[in-house]
Amino acid sequence: MDNQNSNHTERIVTQVKNAWAAQNKNVTAFFNKYEDEAYLKEIAPDKNRAVYLLGHLTAVNDNLLPLFGLGEKLYPELEEIFLKSADKAIAHIPTVADLKQKWETVNTTLSNHFDKMTADEWLDRHTAVSAEDFKLEPTRNKLNVLIGRTIHQSYHAGQLNLLDA
Amino acid sequence: MDNQNSNHTERIVTQVKNAWAAQNKNVTAFFNKYEDEAYLKEIAPDKNRAVYLLGHLTAVNDNLLPLFGLGEKLYPELEEIFLKSADKAIAHIPTVADLKQKWETVNTTLSNHFDKMTADEWLDRHTAVSAEDFKLEPTRNKLNVLIGRTIHQSYHAGQLNLLDA
Repeated sequence: MDNQNSNHTERIVTQVKNAWAAQNKNVTAFFNKYEDEAYLKEIAPDKNRAVYLLGHLTAVNDNLLPLFGLGEKLYPELEEIFLKSADKAIAHIPTVADLKQKWETVNTTLSNHFDKMTADEWLDRHTAVSAEDFKLEPTRNKLNVLIGRTIHQSYHAGQLNLLDA
Repeated sequence: MDNQNSNHTERIVTQVKNAWAAQNKNVTAFFNKYEDEAYLKEIAPDKNRAVYLLGHLTAVNDNLLPLFGLGEKLYPELEEIFLKSADKAIAHIPTVADLKQKWETVNTTLSNHFDKMTADEWLDRHTAVSAEDFKLEPTRNKLNVLIGRTIHQSYHAGQLNLLDA
């Protein structure tokens, strides 16, 4: 039973990691489909531009580094543009080519860390919850954050796929 | 260790079930925001109507009953309209009020079943994979399907939230 349950936990953690990676891959594939300028268009009239959503998703993934205690953000400058500001509120944003590069670097960095994390670490608290609060709410663990981020990526992937490029 | 790992597995299963339920709740809240006729509009020009996506998500959730070996579909008639056909391909589709009722009934039925399922059952194969194939691909379990369905719901929730009602 010990081995079986341990295997079960490992298996589920792997499944969640795979789901996250699959969503990353979907987004990457979408941004490799057209010429860069196509992503400067809005996904629908008066909605976010595709390039903004790429920056947004990159900033959200980058934020996992400090949230999981894995290090500092690689591109802290993205936060102001893509997390704190709405699309078109800031005139000068990085290019599609630049963001695609950052998106890849963030995801590769995260994947390398994730490959080394044990199931116990996944089920431990993230840095935004205190030890005391975590005792009361043990679901505030890293794996839960990754599930949430995977769902969030898919939310925007659905929007991106509406783009008439 | 046995208890800890068993608890870990239970906890992750609960987290995945909670994520699925939270996505259901988002969709329900969205369809309670406006008058029914608002959902007859397209989410963006020449894209799916909101009502179609409600039927689509209901049919997908309904399909979990046979896929998890929990019984027959409640509304098999939705499959032809919302899974096998694109929006507007079929002239007469159920009303928003009717679909909202079916959506609730399907989700309540599923939740009642899910409450009784053990972690071992979640990690067992679903009915679309044979026992032999499952030995080779143990990730083809029910929990993985639920993760996938949760991601799928969020994909369409992102689109629904573009509706200018």
